[in-house]
Amino acid sequence: MPTLSVFTDVPMAQKLEGSLLKAYKQDDDPNKMFLAYKVCMTSEGRPWVSSVVRKTRMQIAQDPSLNYEYTPVMGMKSFIQASLNLLFGKNSQVIVENRAGGVQTVGDSGAFQLGAQFLKTWCQNSQIVYIVSSQKGLSTGDLEEDAIFLQYFVSQGFEFFCSQSLSKNFGIYDEGVGTLVVVALNNQLLLRVLSQLTNFARALWLNPPTTGARIITSVLCNPAMQGEWRQSLEGVVENIMMTKEKVKEKLRLLGTPGSWDHITEQKGTHSYLGLNLELLWDSCGSPEMLTLPTIHNSPWARGEQDGTTLGSEMPWLSPAQQVEYLISKKHIYIPKNGRINFTCINSYNIDYITASINEAVCFTKDSEK
Amino acid sequence: MPTLSVFTDVPMAQKLEGSLLKAYKQDDDPNKMFLAYKVCMTSEGRPWVSSVVRKTRMQIAQDPSLNYEYTPVMGMKSFIQASLNLLFGKNSQVIVENRAGGVQTVGDSGAFQLGAQFLKTWCQNSQIVYIVSSQKGLSTGDLEEDAIFLQYFVSQGFEFFCSQSLSKNFGIYDEGVGTLVVVALNNQLLLRVLSQLTNFARALWLNPPTTGARIITSVLCNPAMQGEWRQSLEGVVENIMMTKEKVKEKLRLLGTPGSWDHITEQKGTHSYLGLNLELLWDSCGSPEMLTLPTIHNSPWARGEQDGTTLGSEMPWLSPAQQVEYLISKKHIYIPKNGRINFTCINSYNIDYITASINEAVCFTKDSEK
Repeated sequence: MPTLSVFTDVPMAQKLEGSLLKAYKQDDDPNKMFLAYKVCMTSEGRPWVSSVVRKTRMQIAQDPSLNYEYTPVMGMKSFIQASLNLLFGKNSQVIVENRAGGVQTVGDSGAFQLGAQFLKTWCQNSQIVYIVSSQKGLSTGDLEEDAIFLQYFVSQGFEFFCSQSLSKNFGIYDEGVGTLVVVALNNQLLLRVLSQLTNFARALWLNPPTTGARIITSVLCNPAMQGEWRQSLEGVVENIMMTKEKVKEKLRLLGTPGSWDHITEQKGTHSYLGLNLELLWDSCGSPEMLTLPTIHNSPWARGEQDGTTLGSEMPWLSPAQQVEYLISKKHIYIPKNGRINFTCINSYNIDYITASINEAVCFTKDSEK
Repeated sequence: MPTLSVFTDVPMAQKLEGSLLKAYKQDDDPNKMFLAYKVCMTSEGRPWVSSVVRKTRMQIAQDPSLNYEYTPVMGMKSFIQASLNLLFGKNSQVIVENRAGGVQTVGDSGAFQLGAQFLKTWCQNSQIVYIVSSQKGLSTGDLEEDAIFLQYFVSQGFEFFCSQSLSKNFGIYDEGVGTLVVVALNNQLLLRVLSQLTNFARALWLNPPTTGARIITSVLCNPAMQGEWRQSLEGVVENIMMTKEKVKEKLRLLGTPGSWDHITEQKGTHSYLGLNLELLWDSCGSPEMLTLPTIHNSPWARGEQDGTTLGSEMPWLSPAQQVEYLISKKHIYIPKNGRINFTCINSYNIDYITASINEAVCFTKDSEK
């Protein structure tokens, strides 16, 4: 057997994510909890799945007329149309004028990959690509309101790509279902762009997987099921807001220094906890937590987060140290930036979490002595 | 609204495939048939699905313990392990030595994309990439025998990638499930290669879809279900061989010129029909169909397929004209290269198909007069 490998020069890749979850899994403490899941969780601490999805999944499994044949490279036509109707409205200008279309992709990451490949090939002269991030994915619970910024783009006559993912809204996180939506000035341009995108998709994955697309299409094309799904979404959003209110109230009752209004001012499943990013800068005597937009004034946000320069002169822990405190002392796993998934907080763990946050915020270097 | 589009310079992409199916769908003839489906068909003319898959699909849909959470970027570990065990054998050298691994991909096209991205980045000095095509996906019905060439690579101490797709073997064509298998000289090298592949996969689709992987894992990890699945595979292979025998026999009974042994000499769902590629070259008086390996001696295979040079001197139709004859006169849609899916032939259409082939082969330019 040869001893010289063709892979000799291949280094170990830098791990980009997943180490927090790995550390959590390796933690033996019975109180451990992970507040950084990407998925929406139920109050019982399980990934949320819209009730209508379970029913649809059963219907699909029982349907003898389905043949599970390869889908077209462009994806399921009915799925793409249903997604476009949901995004823009069935009677919207771009739909009526046949200048909005889409290619089914493998999740929203697949849509980004596909769009980037297109731009690299066909828009080489463009110096700037604007990327607007709007994971509105559970924001107000009102789908039309969440997509209103797209209507603005349309009204301004923009041409644009939109990576649309409904995985989180349906609770089918593992199905890899997305759409790269294209809005062009007219139908002729749209068809040309879609034809090129289809060829890129052919080289990427040939046929997109259908289970997720089939579930979503079944729900969206049935008014009763769509109604039930929308209702389930509203329920989730209400729960998120209620959890945030409770967290804020409990921190207030505990006397945790600062204002925690920014928690309820942010929408969606994932929001910045804040911790005392500002506390250290603005207080020192009269601690006051400012809302997030001013976080950039913090010494920690200016690249001095390691606490070795300013931190050593301050009595409190740096934000990074607070996160470390929550992880190592309280076994509460949160990302370094403090952006947590509020659906991971439920009636069983809210007291422990808020008490721990209070501890981390109030902890001073003197406390250890 | 602006009138100048950013997409002005984007041309319509060349259509790479699908036009034959489109033409078939637009054909109103009641006798029309399509012999170029990629999927394996049942004797009733529907895409074949292994019986055990239907049961598994139901079990998965009913399973309350499944949470449909995002899968790791590398894919479902249990699926990858089950795929590797199937490919090499649980106690094989590469498995025992921990130097075979894999990344779950979106179908086998996704595996090619992933492998190509890796090679482009990490093997820039390599001038030659050997690609061995072995779509053995239903060949002998014996999985171990079909994968025997991989054992040979291992025994020679090769390092290699293998795009493994089980979609066709299970009849889950639309689930986009594949694996990029890696064999390295040792575990350390394997882990480095897998870490880089995982980062490429992250940018391509982030999380691979799970339904297909879940179905396959459920079947492979349950000995009784795996047994039932293997039996269903053997049944399919037997049917394919029986169909090929019948086609050959019917052509013989019709007195179609030439030998049609090459039909039964080829394995798998898709095989070359052959038509009279050789007939025109070697016969002219004493027509004889040669087996496929000699096709390259044909005038048609030497780039004179349009029939304008030699064809005009010959009484028979050129292969391209025969295909055209079958499509336009008999409404039987087959690809230009004559490679058809034999599972599309069943007891309902075999007589019409063989009679039509006979007609096309015997048709001379004089016949029209």
